[in-house]
Amino acid sequence: MSELGKERIMKRIPVVIFGAGGVGAALLRQIVDGRNRVAARNQYRFEVAAVTDSRSCLFAAEGLDDAALLAAVERKRQGLAVAEGKRPSEIEIIDRARQAGWEKGIVVDVTAVDGMEPVLDHALAAGYGVALANKKALAGPWQTAQKYFNHSRVRHESTVGGGQPVIATLRYLLDVNDPVYEIEGQMSGTLGFICGQMDGGIPFSHAVREAKELGYTEPDPREDLSGKDVMRKALILARMAGWPLEEADIEVESLYSPELADLSVPEFMDAAAGLDETMRLRVATAQTEGMVLRYVAEVADGRGVVGLKPVPAGSALSSLKYISFRTGRYDDEPLLIGGKGAGVEMTAAGVLGDMIDLAREEL
Amino acid sequence: MSELGKERIMKRIPVVIFGAGGVGAALLRQIVDGRNRVAARNQYRFEVAAVTDSRSCLFAAEGLDDAALLAAVERKRQGLAVAEGKRPSEIEIIDRARQAGWEKGIVVDVTAVDGMEPVLDHALAAGYGVALANKKALAGPWQTAQKYFNHSRVRHESTVGGGQPVIATLRYLLDVNDPVYEIEGQMSGTLGFICGQMDGGIPFSHAVREAKELGYTEPDPREDLSGKDVMRKALILARMAGWPLEEADIEVESLYSPELADLSVPEFMDAAAGLDETMRLRVATAQTEGMVLRYVAEVADGRGVVGLKPVPAGSALSSLKYISFRTGRYDDEPLLIGGKGAGVEMTAAGVLGDMIDLAREEL
Repeated sequence: MSELGKERIMKRIPVVIFGAGGVGAALLRQIVDGRNRVAARNQYRFEVAAVTDSRSCLFAAEGLDDAALLAAVERKRQGLAVAEGKRPSEIEIIDRARQAGWEKGIVVDVTAVDGMEPVLDHALAAGYGVALANKKALAGPWQTAQKYFNHSRVRHESTVGGGQPVIATLRYLLDVNDPVYEIEGQMSGTLGFICGQMDGGIPFSHAVREAKELGYTEPDPREDLSGKDVMRKALILARMAGWPLEEADIEVESLYSPELADLSVPEFMDAAAGLDETMRLRVATAQTEGMVLRYVAEVADGRGVVGLKPVPAGSALSSLKYISFRTGRYDDEPLLIGGKGAGVEMTAAGVLGDMIDLAREEL
Repeated sequence: MSELGKERIMKRIPVVIFGAGGVGAALLRQIVDGRNRVAARNQYRFEVAAVTDSRSCLFAAEGLDDAALLAAVERKRQGLAVAEGKRPSEIEIIDRARQAGWEKGIVVDVTAVDGMEPVLDHALAAGYGVALANKKALAGPWQTAQKYFNHSRVRHESTVGGGQPVIATLRYLLDVNDPVYEIEGQMSGTLGFICGQMDGGIPFSHAVREAKELGYTEPDPREDLSGKDVMRKALILARMAGWPLEEADIEVESLYSPELADLSVPEFMDAAAGLDETMRLRVATAQTEGMVLRYVAEVADGRGVVGLKPVPAGSALSSLKYISFRTGRYDDEPLLIGGKGAGVEMTAAGVLGDMIDLAREEL
């Protein structure tokens, strides 16, 4: 078959990408770098019709070419907006893609903003698929979030496990009718790092500072230390498994005390030393019993707990970032997905996998 | 929407199942038990048009009803044939389903026999999907096996990992263009059990006998101890990952010596005691270095090794049945799938998952 012949059976799939931060930029690079692989394995070509950041939008009805996508990545790296000028609303951007003749396509949310629900609803109503790395819509009140769970055109692998095939595994267990009794895991690489440092006697505040300097934390480390992001992951898994929990049903232990909430980031980094002694005692107490502290999320029927927990030192579960499912069939040892890799690249890969999955199954 | 209305959009998918042993019987039960779940989640109904064993075939063009499927399971449990009389060839059975008007459907191979390739080829040429728990066709010479790898209508989750989503995970890594450098794992629950018993000082031959009595081994335990089944799994993973290995490229350590190959099973069970002292010394040597022996498969570019290997005692990898992937992005710790559950039920669930996957993507 000629090259021309091959081109003709390639399925072109328009993609509208909201968000051009770390994950968004990695996704654009992966779309460009993976074109040949995706074409060879699946006969798809993702046409990126739009890329936005909070300020601006790069748009090309027929799909931005690779040079334009890589230029956008470079602009973001330099701290610039993705394009000149102000952008239309997300809904207007989706409508522009539709008006260009794309009847089916994929809307990607790799922002971290609240309030994307109307945008997602608009995309779904238009027959588009949705791929989410942004957890907010799935972790909102059940009444609004419910419609995204088990919707055939919603994918969200990267919301939990950062690219590990956790959502796909849970979907498989539900498909084959294996009852899920309990979901457990260490769902934060950042908190796993901090706990691991404390094992070795490093004070809590030093471990937090080190994690921040290595770029493992959010710019404000309290966003990690609050446990709220882990709570959202636990909530998403619980809801998928069939338990319609709300935020309030999950007990969350914050790793900083409430009086530190209103400090500036530099003030907090200094004040965190005040937490060291309490934490040192907890670590030491655990160690006298052969345990180490890990930040663990546990979800079972009707409730969830997220916080520090003693785990046997040297055990599989003390040394892995993992999520496990105890089910009717996985009775001896729970089904476990573990491993640790390259942050935003893996998260972006999860989104790309979702896009391929949507193209295979739904578009 | 009325119940009638719901029925009307249900997609009916014919299934021809070759094999009614442990996995086949479990699959039939799961198809019956999972009907409501599969219908509610995916709007599919699997119509089992045929079930065969080596001698006979149960056939109903419109799909066997649940009572007939469960009766077949019961007949097998009693050691009877699945139906009266002799059966046509596999190809004739597929053609009977096609002649009944089923243009698309799924052929399932849950036998353990050689030589199914012409049957699979016939099904694929007819536009049917194929779901395999039988490893033989995938582990044969590359020249004949090649066409089944990355064929859009071939699924084989249960050939490796016995129901753990190992194949799905590797497919995902390949989809998203993450280069796979090495695949490693403990791929035999039976050999894992025997190794674990030896950790505690139990002689090799006693551990083998115990595994046999618990039903963990094949009727002839040498089929497990030879490592050949693990080799086939390693070969399948290697080929999926893009390395076109042959059997001869994988070095396999058998856990019994060649002179025991021709004994009867009872003779072998007695003679196995002659292996105890050598094995005891190997275990003891490993233990002086803080290690335990595990039966590990390792595959990397161009070669594979399957055999006993010292692994740090108490480590995650000494205590899990797992498969791991070291990739470009999983650089800190490989992506790992672990867990252990209910044998044939999980294998059957893997096949059911493949059927759902084929229905979603291809049929």
